[in-house]
Amino acid sequence: MQPIIYQGIMERYKKELLENVVPFWTKHAPDFEYGGYFHCFDRDGTIIDTNKSMWIEARAIWMFSRLFNSSILTNQPERTEWLNLAKLGADFLKKYGRDENGDFYFRLSKEGKPLVAPYNIFSDCFAAIGFLEYAKASGDQESFDIAKQTYQRIQNRKNQPKGKWDKTMPGTQPLFGLSLPMMNINVSDVFQTIEPNPVYEEIIRAEISVILDRFVDRKYHVIRENIVQTGGFCNETYEGRHINPGHGIESLWFIMSVASRRKDSNIIKRCHEALLDNLEFGWDTECGGLFYFMDVLGKPHLELSWDMKLWWVHLESLIATLMGFQLTGDSKLWDWFVKLEEYTWKHFPDSQYGEWFPYLTRDGKVNNNQKGGRWKCFFHLPRALLMIAEMSSVGNNPTLTNLHYL
Amino acid sequence: MQPIIYQGIMERYKKELLENVVPFWTKHAPDFEYGGYFHCFDRDGTIIDTNKSMWIEARAIWMFSRLFNSSILTNQPERTEWLNLAKLGADFLKKYGRDENGDFYFRLSKEGKPLVAPYNIFSDCFAAIGFLEYAKASGDQESFDIAKQTYQRIQNRKNQPKGKWDKTMPGTQPLFGLSLPMMNINVSDVFQTIEPNPVYEEIIRAEISVILDRFVDRKYHVIRENIVQTGGFCNETYEGRHINPGHGIESLWFIMSVASRRKDSNIIKRCHEALLDNLEFGWDTECGGLFYFMDVLGKPHLELSWDMKLWWVHLESLIATLMGFQLTGDSKLWDWFVKLEEYTWKHFPDSQYGEWFPYLTRDGKVNNNQKGGRWKCFFHLPRALLMIAEMSSVGNNPTLTNLHYL
Repeated sequence: MQPIIYQGIMERYKKELLENVVPFWTKHAPDFEYGGYFHCFDRDGTIIDTNKSMWIEARAIWMFSRLFNSSILTNQPERTEWLNLAKLGADFLKKYGRDENGDFYFRLSKEGKPLVAPYNIFSDCFAAIGFLEYAKASGDQESFDIAKQTYQRIQNRKNQPKGKWDKTMPGTQPLFGLSLPMMNINVSDVFQTIEPNPVYEEIIRAEISVILDRFVDRKYHVIRENIVQTGGFCNETYEGRHINPGHGIESLWFIMSVASRRKDSNIIKRCHEALLDNLEFGWDTECGGLFYFMDVLGKPHLELSWDMKLWWVHLESLIATLMGFQLTGDSKLWDWFVKLEEYTWKHFPDSQYGEWFPYLTRDGKVNNNQKGGRWKCFFHLPRALLMIAEMSSVGNNPTLTNLHYL
Repeated sequence: MQPIIYQGIMERYKKELLENVVPFWTKHAPDFEYGGYFHCFDRDGTIIDTNKSMWIEARAIWMFSRLFNSSILTNQPERTEWLNLAKLGADFLKKYGRDENGDFYFRLSKEGKPLVAPYNIFSDCFAAIGFLEYAKASGDQESFDIAKQTYQRIQNRKNQPKGKWDKTMPGTQPLFGLSLPMMNINVSDVFQTIEPNPVYEEIIRAEISVILDRFVDRKYHVIRENIVQTGGFCNETYEGRHINPGHGIESLWFIMSVASRRKDSNIIKRCHEALLDNLEFGWDTECGGLFYFMDVLGKPHLELSWDMKLWWVHLESLIATLMGFQLTGDSKLWDWFVKLEEYTWKHFPDSQYGEWFPYLTRDGKVNNNQKGGRWKCFFHLPRALLMIAEMSSVGNNPTLTNLHYL
């Protein structure tokens, strides 16, 4: 293969980040009246819903802080604005975000009035990393304390994350999902990177083992989204057969990122195989792109949106393939990165109003042009653009000078 | 316009019902081992999920009983089988369906073990009409008692239908949905028809007033799915702007059916106008068919499946337009019936494996070919085929000889 010209990749992703994506959010998201951010936007940035979901607010706090903290953006004049915007969200969440137990509400009104109870532990996961990254950026001790307390609540709640809102009957054997171990790796890795502690490393080690030993399906060559709590897979129900290719791939780069730091070639090797399997499984050979949801046996899926092509799935896959290639040198992963880039850059960016389209039909038409909503927010797109720019910035990125186990 | 040849319509719908739809369910659904019905099927009838949702079991009990009770099917030799199959479901629900309060669980395992708690009042709504219609068919007093008890629980619970599983915060003003008043009219109308009582008539009258006075939006000429509890509409949030054309149209035939019985020409007139408005609003002028979900202001919808074409939306609209035409004589409604028929019969029936496809993409391709699932079941399709056959069976149907207020 040709030598990789990382300089070009770095410039392209950094330019998209700083010229087409971040300005959309700094312009439309801040609520200078009540604090926090609006996050539901029409194609042109018009606000279409004024309520504020805590997990989405927290993601934006993380992202603005992460931009501020990035080693490749230290000369950007916008850094002060990013820090101020991170503070706008952090102050709002400090004031209104938590209930009396310290758990984060799911949704508030724009003024900060609680609308939906704290039933969802992912609000807390993103709050933990949001406040920690902001504490690093600002030096704010209160944010650091909130991050640590929230992290502890997550570990205490993680075996029964829905608490009293859990509708499954006691004594049944509900399935156990990929989301929480996957998220716990990412959250703990952010903590470990900013404030190293063996406690985080042990949690990460255990969760990696859960995913690689229990969720990776060696028969069907894909990562399962749900497993039986006592072990094995369930093929009798929709949920048991459910595959979320983007989630599987995202979890693999979370794990590879840890393994790279630890120089753990065995884990990298296992991720490498699983990544190739998941890409193969998830790719739509007829229309291109990665499916949103699949059924491990090819049965009809529960969700009508199963065949759609989503922005985040492709962005997480770009991160994973580039990271995997840099760690292994396997040209098959480079080929996947190129193939994913071609699909992604052709279909998702909005050249007219900025930012990217989130939701495409199976054959690649824009089905829904909102730029922000209840799921799309200031997170996957800027994170991927930033990380790929960082990974391509030779000298700044340890993975580039790291082990190639092949 | 040409005189309508009802005989042809009657024969076509009855034939489809008895030859292409009912046999699929009598063959694949019964679980003679544990009782009740399987209801999740691949295109060819293969079972793809073995769990049993109570609202879906109850719908099938109602449907088998309703077939048995239909005045146009009294000579069918399959009537004994239908009654036996209704009993198979009723016995299963009697034994396993309810918790200690008499509320119906949301989902059981195939053996009858509770899996998901009774958080959803629609399980009870369908159980009430299922047991009542079965009581009428079988004369079973226990089923009659369960129906009455369940009806009473619904009226007691309806102001807080989700009970302890409600995640909205106290003191907030959540929106109030169309589903429950709409369902309450239908349920109460089944009770009123089988066992007349002023109590039912009063509940029906109140719920009709809620829908026609509060959900009909005269500015945007459509029925809203959610309204503000204290009155008016909310255009600030996704839920506030949410339009479900099929739901609106279905609620109109529920109301017209009552108004026809009561010979209430004022209510019929209001439904007539609202029906034409909803059809106009919901029709996809580009690709044909009625949209699944819309936004009243044309903003991006929360649900990715918003632009899909669903079997039940078209079937409910066929019932509503034919009923509306028969009650008003307005040829515009006949034209809609013909237009809907053309789209529906071209796209949904599966000539190879029987039954109908449920889910099409916007441009009319089959996106998901399951014949039964967590939503599609033995209900909308056979009910619509039966009702249209009944409505077209001159002499058997009072609406045909009824008032034409125009």
